[in-house]
Amino acid sequence: MANSKFEYVRNFEQADSLLPNTWIVVRVDGRAFTKMCAKYEFEKPNDRRALDLMNAAAKAVVSDLPEVTIAYGVSDEYSFVFHKSCSLFERRASKLVSTVVSTFTANYVFSWSTFFPDTPLSFPLPTFDGRAVCYPGIQNLRDYLSWRQVDCHINNLYNTTFWALIQLGDLGNKDAEKTLAGTLASDKNEILFSRFHINYNNEPEMFKKGSVVFRDYELVDPESHRVADEMDDIAEPARPSKSQSDKDRKRRSKARVVVEHLDIIKDDFWNRRPWILSNKPGKVPKET
Amino acid sequence: MANSKFEYVRNFEQADSLLPNTWIVVRVDGRAFTKMCAKYEFEKPNDRRALDLMNAAAKAVVSDLPEVTIAYGVSDEYSFVFHKSCSLFERRASKLVSTVVSTFTANYVFSWSTFFPDTPLSFPLPTFDGRAVCYPGIQNLRDYLSWRQVDCHINNLYNTTFWALIQLGDLGNKDAEKTLAGTLASDKNEILFSRFHINYNNEPEMFKKGSVVFRDYELVDPESHRVADEMDDIAEPARPSKSQSDKDRKRRSKARVVVEHLDIIKDDFWNRRPWILSNKPGKVPKET
Amino acid sequence: MANSKFEYVRNFEQADSLLPNTWIVVRVDGRAFTKMCAKYEFEKPNDRRALDLMNAAAKAVVSDLPEVTIAYGVSDEYSFVFHKSCSLFERRASKLVSTVVSTFTANYVFSWSTFFPDTPLSFPLPTFDGRAVCYPGIQNLRDYLSWRQVDCHINNLYNTTFWALIQLGDLGNKDAEKTLAGTLASDKNEILFSRFHINYNNEPEMFKKGSVVFRDYELVDPESHRVADEMDDIAEPARPSKSQSDKDRKRRSKARVVVEHLDIIKDDFWNRRPWILSNKPGKVPKET
Amino acid sequence: MANSKFEYVRNFEQADSLLPNTWIVVRVDGRAFTKMCAKYEFEKPNDRRALDLMNAAAKAVVSDLPEVTIAYGVSDEYSFVFHKSCSLFERRASKLVSTVVSTFTANYVFSWSTFFPDTPLSFPLPTFDGRAVCYPGIQNLRDYLSWRQVDCHINNLYNTTFWALIQLGDLGNKDAEKTLAGTLASDKNEILFSRFHINYNNEPEMFKKGSVVFRDYELVDPESHRVADEMDDIAEPARPSKSQSDKDRKRRSKARVVVEHLDIIKDDFWNRRPWILSNKPGKVPKET
Repeated sequence: MANSKFEYVRNFEQADSLLPNTWIVVRVDGRAFTKMCAKYEFEKPNDRRALDLMNAAAKAVVSDLPEVTIAYGVSDEYSFVFHKSCSLFERRASKLVSTVVSTFTANYVFSWSTFFPDTPLSFPLPTFDGRAVCYPGIQNLRDYLSWRQVDCHINNLYNTTFWALIQLGDLGNKDAEKTLAGTLASDKNEILFSRFHINYNNEPEMFKKGSVVFRDYELVDPESHRVADEMDDIAEPARPSKSQSDKDRKRRSKARVVVEHLDIIKDDFWNRRPWILSNKPGKVPKET
Repeated sequence: MANSKFEYVRNFEQADSLLPNTWIVVRVDGRAFTKMCAKYEFEKPNDRRALDLMNAAAKAVVSDLPEVTIAYGVSDEYSFVFHKSCSLFERRASKLVSTVVSTFTANYVFSWSTFFPDTPLSFPLPTFDGRAVCYPGIQNLRDYLSWRQVDCHINNLYNTTFWALIQLGDLGNKDAEKTLAGTLASDKNEILFSRFHINYNNEPEMFKKGSVVFRDYELVDPESHRVADEMDDIAEPARPSKSQSDKDRKRRSKARVVVEHLDIIKDDFWNRRPWILSNKPGKVPKET
Repeated sequence: MANSKFEYVRNFEQADSLLPNTWIVVRVDGRAFTKMCAKYEFEKPNDRRALDLMNAAAKAVVSDLPEVTIAYGVSDEYSFVFHKSCSLFERRASKLVSTVVSTFTANYVFSWSTFFPDTPLSFPLPTFDGRAVCYPGIQNLRDYLSWRQVDCHINNLYNTTFWALIQLGDLGNKDAEKTLAGTLASDKNEILFSRFHINYNNEPEMFKKGSVVFRDYELVDPESHRVADEMDDIAEPARPSKSQSDKDRKRRSKARVVVEHLDIIKDDFWNRRPWILSNKPGKVPKET
Repeated sequence: MANSKFEYVRNFEQADSLLPNTWIVVRVDGRAFTKMCAKYEFEKPNDRRALDLMNAAAKAVVSDLPEVTIAYGVSDEYSFVFHKSCSLFERRASKLVSTVVSTFTANYVFSWSTFFPDTPLSFPLPTFDGRAVCYPGIQNLRDYLSWRQVDCHINNLYNTTFWALIQLGDLGNKDAEKTLAGTLASDKNEILFSRFHINYNNEPEMFKKGSVVFRDYELVDPESHRVADEMDDIAEPARPSKSQSDKDRKRRSKARVVVEHLDIIKDDFWNRRPWILSNKPGKVPKET
């Protein structure tokens, strides 16, 4: 074949399979979103339309890729978790990252006009980059997600207070910064309440907690079983038969994908939804 | 800080910087495009609108990322070449791949309606995956691009003949396949000419050669200098000063990005456009 | 400094840190040991001196590197396990592999004359290669070690029968191979017993089970605690304080390193020696 | 087969092939050699026996591995260069590094008594670690080697002066350090000459230049050919036929391996020995 002379170049491609039996997190981050926010005049400190659009794009990723077991998003970033037993694309990092990023971007651009009907997109378009990180233990994975949710909380409390000082308190950026320098969480709560009659606890859950995307089944009574133990049993090698795995994939693809704003740091979220870590689809809740 | 307890998870991210002083090719491939072609009824063997859309998306990538020195596309794939001296994103593979894929996808989805005004997109949206490969020598890089262009030629000659047999010769798929089994290029040319009065040479250049995207400067007389020698001198360590590199980047970002359908296997293309391999911007051609 | 012009070459070194919180197995394999066996006339099917020399070299590695929690050897290979919490050499693969291989080789060559007093070494000298593999879960690690021990059993039963047929049964190599083709373990046991009055169970433990190297503390009653549970608790993030880790390292370096020939597939070995997986030094046994 | 249940653990081994068509440098470094020097009372600033032993070990590596095209050593480190076309061990980093380190260590320990007949080795034995780095261009490779040789020069001039101040000038360590703080090369030359009548130029070449190990063929007249051009031609893809490559390997394995103390920064060394970079064996010099 005429092409054989050049075909040797294929040998330069290097393997990038991620270690088996580890949780894969693909995180997507908005590129140059500070500029984006200015260009499209996103509201401060949170633009609900922009967050809803992020959530819509994330929901599409989870729907299109049943191997994603949970996703968590805040601001212009979204983390997608592939179960440790996942063998999609033979776990090749570049395939996993690029597929998630491409699906996320396609949906973000496509659905823009739904959430910003009066603000047409223009060049350069919004884009995202991505990376994959492996976490060997369930605790590592949960700590990763806790890290992102704590970050959400810290940033949102800061930003809410910062923009209150500017928008309601008529301070300039510099003065608002100075006011907040060295303050604790309790100080910021106090500023919000005493100066602006804002009770931070009443702020929207989406702003305070970020967004969690997952497949919805019937909740489980945490008292009815030793979830932690089962997870450990489940969690180790995790090599289901091909047919079982196909069946599960099918059930998962039928489940409803939901976007909620819940605490994912405490155990309760996980104990009530054992399917997220076990990768065994739960019961589909009855329609009402 | 409250977050410190969880922050250790950052240590799980692993370095993925690509070897310095090598050419980086990021190739983007359509995911499940066979289905896509059927769903949106792309014309066979080539859908000009679909290729124009690919080219528009590729042009946007080259424009947005001045570090891309040349791109080559055929069918549902596009290869973007970063110069060996490129230090964008510290050469991190995941950042380079995800940024190219995201920019390509964003533009593909956004510009869809321009090229398919009567065919709205629907879910699941078109997406692309990507990967990065390093090529140490100029010859390796050119062999990679030659490989893709020969592939384009082989596939297009086959497809043109195959679809002529079906569309003009009223054969079924199976019979068309059988007719072509074991045929050489000359046989296919002969089938096209004798049965359907098609001279393959007169087929559109875009179909026969694929598409090349690059920055356009004044062509250079290949006789006026020893291009190969200069390239070797240029090609080695390639560590320009920060200020020179910034200046070049600026000039490059001003140059016109063009899409052409040229032979990139022979030396002539490269000798006349030394800036592609040297990464030194050429002269901007006078406007006419 | 005069050297700065060349120092840029340091940037070509690429990171190779192994994923945190995973068990690292460095396996050392003899290079061209078939030739070696012939050159130095090793006894067949097992040369006790050669195995004792391997064990001496392995013991030196475990003694010199307190981060090794257990090692297992059979034939001309040895596997060294670093605990999942190990941070030696910042977990850089090349440092870990090369240090283990170098220490093993140095001791093998140095101690050769102790085990082969009448057979001086000659060029080319015996050498070993090595590689590192990460295992995320305890089950994965134990399955790895079980894999090696089952391999030991299968090979030793085959070799014992094969060489009995040759040495005691006067068969040629080809005929011995033919005799064993397709036989099960029970068949080989039967051949050994009925033809040669050899009861395979009475073969030396070192030949049948391979060799396990570890630090020796007081055995623990497996009934006295839920080892599996503790291991899971212990096993997750495993980030002891620097001072605790230094103290443990010290205690470990004082413990006696032993070479034994035990079943490491069943739970009992592990339950009685929880320190191997927990990385918490046990009680030093009283001297007798 | 009984082993199949555990065999899945093989999938955890990850590919580590080094990029094709790049020069591979495996550098070996003494572990804890400061302690070693004290323990075995190496002479200061250079111990000729210790360097000769390093060179003997390096020579054995080059002889055993014909794929090594040149090696350079100084102090307790040695760099081994594999030609860019090398396909040994499918270019797997761990195999290359461990084999070099093991061969080096084996020979170092084995030949110790030849160079230190009155100083027996004792535990812990001398060991080495290693790493592999890829260099895409000849210039990169030569810059790497120049970096090591300049380092040798800088350190040796410093150490020669430092130890002259102590051994001949009766200074303490602290005072010697202070005397040298901030001095230039010319200052050190001056101190050596004016205080101790030592002309640095007359110091042994091995101390000043380090040691170069390579295969010896007839030197070539640098005027007789355009070496640089040929190298570039040679250097690119470098995919010789299997049979040619086998023939070359054979010729190389017959050539005499020499240890010399030459300048490898200037072009002359390379122009007179084109076989080092071209990987084409030269003419075997006539015996005298």
